[in-house]
Amino acid sequence: MPPIGRKQWAIPEGYLPSWSHGPAPQMSSHEAICILNVSGVDAHIEITIFYEDRAPVGPYRFTVENARTRHLRLNDFDDPEKIPVDTPFSSIVVSDTPVVVQHTRLDSRQAENALMTAMAFAGSE
Amino acid sequence: MPPIGRKQWAIPEGYLPSWSHGPAPQMSSHEAICILNVSGVDAHIEITIFYEDRAPVGPYRFTVENARTRHLRLNDFDDPEKIPVDTPFSSIVVSDTPVVVQHTRLDSRQAENALMTAMAFAGSE
Amino acid sequence: MPPIGRKQWAIPEGYLPSWSHGPAPQMSSHEAICILNVSGVDAHIEITIFYEDRAPVGPYRFTVENARTRHLRLNDFDDPEKIPVDTPFSSIVVSDTPVVVQHTRLDSRQAENALMTAMAFAGSE
Amino acid sequence: MPPIGRKQWAIPEGYLPSWSHGPAPQMSSHEAICILNVSGVDAHIEITIFYEDRAPVGPYRFTVENARTRHLRLNDFDDPEKIPVDTPFSSIVVSDTPVVVQHTRLDSRQAENALMTAMAFAGSE
Repeated sequence: MPPIGRKQWAIPEGYLPSWSHGPAPQMSSHEAICILNVSGVDAHIEITIFYEDRAPVGPYRFTVENARTRHLRLNDFDDPEKIPVDTPFSSIVVSDTPVVVQHTRLDSRQAENALMTAMAFAGSE
Repeated sequence: MPPIGRKQWAIPEGYLPSWSHGPAPQMSSHEAICILNVSGVDAHIEITIFYEDRAPVGPYRFTVENARTRHLRLNDFDDPEKIPVDTPFSSIVVSDTPVVVQHTRLDSRQAENALMTAMAFAGSE
Repeated sequence: MPPIGRKQWAIPEGYLPSWSHGPAPQMSSHEAICILNVSGVDAHIEITIFYEDRAPVGPYRFTVENARTRHLRLNDFDDPEKIPVDTPFSSIVVSDTPVVVQHTRLDSRQAENALMTAMAFAGSE
Repeated sequence: MPPIGRKQWAIPEGYLPSWSHGPAPQMSSHEAICILNVSGVDAHIEITIFYEDRAPVGPYRFTVENARTRHLRLNDFDDPEKIPVDTPFSSIVVSDTPVVVQHTRLDSRQAENALMTAMAFAGSE
């Protein structure tokens, strides 16, 4: 499998809905950052969260083993701190080996859920 | 944090739904342009709106401070003029420093909301 | 305004839902190809539709004036022929001047509508 | 028609919802990988599925004829094995000729369906 990916990714959109309908955890409103690592070595990931009106927070640290994926729920991030709900934010994902990054939101604030997804924007290296 | 981004972005899709269901402002139908600036300096942004049958309108001007994000609601744009509802349009975003741009629509015209998002198309410089 | 765009775009996803809920035309199930032209000259567009089990159909021809957008509803294409509903297809968009292309589906087959969008994949020239 | 596409694509997001509402097959919850081949020759496709906590599975093999599209439902993959529902995964698509790849989910777990789509991330060759 030839390598594919980049070491830096940006996700301008970010927003954790503050309420949900339906059975948890599947139908809980959430955002996820999905990271695929086929680089040949484990990936050490640092995610930084950017806000509209205060300093960035992070890094949040994760490991994605080689030939594995991880779907990280932003709602569950808690070190160094929780991401507040109902607050606009953005994310930067930095890895020490090339990975591929996609962002998804499931919004179940109303009775029926909505979905959206986008590939993150890849840095040039 | 290494820089990431581009100075020009295009969003062909644009449409402000003309009605909503649910509590404002969270569930109001809207479109947002989310801009992340990690360039090291403040970004001065100019957004131009393109229509099907009349001349472009703009620029709409915004500042995104370094290491901050802004989620700009197109429904709230009012200088030089409001963007009409129920009318197809497109957007060009120009910045004086590299930024990353993503576009999202929340449509709550029917009882349950729908979401869609896409990274804007990045210019070559 | 510096030019932005490409002359060739691909949209692998395509499917016209065969029924709708809600008031037409806003809430009718449909797909749209949104094209923004800031190239400085009018764009002459040719769209070809590809199917799973028969030869491609097209070109469907459109003009997008300079500094204008067009949101083309695939449901309305009729020359050389209508695109059948409930049938998977893909699209290739070719322009004689650089444009930017985005694809959106509004699906109102069930009582509440769903939305999805993606920037088309840009060719290398 | 000039060629467009790449030989390798990554889709970090993947998840098969475990239940559905509405008439099958149109409204069944599913994910699809849509592949367009305008390369001039038939494309032989190999898809590998990556999980969070076990070894990758594949390749799943498909052919996409020249000048044709295929919308492959991941729910139907069964050789070498079915993809489990309610389980995060990612996909890598490799082709022996350039193709274009897009990923879509229709989620009808609640009474009204939700949609999301993203162009896959293209490898550099």
